[in-house]
Amino acid sequence: MDVKFINPFVIAAQTVFKTMLNIDLVLGRPNLKEQRTTSADVTGIMSMVGDRKGTIALCFQEKGALFVFNSLMGDKASTISAEVVDAIGELTNIVSGQARKEFEKNDINLKASIPMVVVGRGVETNFITNLPIITLPFTFSVNNGAGETLTLDFSFE
Amino acid sequence: MDVKFINPFVIAAQTVFKTMLNIDLVLGRPNLKEQRTTSADVTGIMSMVGDRKGTIALCFQEKGALFVFNSLMGDKASTISAEVVDAIGELTNIVSGQARKEFEKNDINLKASIPMVVVGRGVETNFITNLPIITLPFTFSVNNGAGETLTLDFSFE
Repeated sequence: MDVKFINPFVIAAQTVFKTMLNIDLVLGRPNLKEQRTTSADVTGIMSMVGDRKGTIALCFQEKGALFVFNSLMGDKASTISAEVVDAIGELTNIVSGQARKEFEKNDINLKASIPMVVVGRGVETNFITNLPIITLPFTFSVNNGAGETLTLDFSFE
Repeated sequence: MDVKFINPFVIAAQTVFKTMLNIDLVLGRPNLKEQRTTSADVTGIMSMVGDRKGTIALCFQEKGALFVFNSLMGDKASTISAEVVDAIGELTNIVSGQARKEFEKNDINLKASIPMVVVGRGVETNFITNLPIITLPFTFSVNNGAGETLTLDFSFE
């Protein structure tokens, strides 16, 4: 996969987290996933279709999802409520929108589908495709303390 | 929502199950979902984007997913293996493809995204949208005995 298909997702995630949440996402080493399965507590899924097609999955552990929600809303939620699910869905939507803007710079036009959010402890989400699946492991610090992770998995034609 | 947006999904599911699996899907009463949450053991998700956009979720209980897999492959799988996940993803893909053909008859052209399959006991999958979400409750008989359910939830712009 050409690096020009990886950068839009890196830039999108980092830009959205910085702008909306004032969170610095630090990217670890992008990897080609050997398995098609993603495991997370809260997973935001968004497909993009047009000149090409791709799907992203924003994968949070519960603590990270709650931190993101509380940062966004100035709230103190401690469980994955409907509001938290909404917020993660909206965030997935916005990251996807930012990525699509980046792709437009390469003359690749994509339209968004409907975001889906999967909730459940360590739930498996599988990409059913022969396309490569890339995983972008981000970390961010929570309350200036221990790091949380956000994994952005994607497959792009 | 116009009935012309419901029928393609009904026809698609029934046609694919009959053709590929020799299973007669019996449709119960379609409902407008009050909640955006779907709960299932194996959920095949597929988005379609183009002139409009929509997403379907094929929701199986474990027993139904295994029966479908075993009918398709002439196998005797008893757990949700990678092969079962693949088969449910492919089935979701084919149902979506059949629905898109139906939409083409109404001059609505859609492209498919990448199928996703979510696995886990009673996992919640949420549509993040203000569009209506319709649920199509199908039943089918397993080994001429007790009925299994397939719920096809969808949202369509």
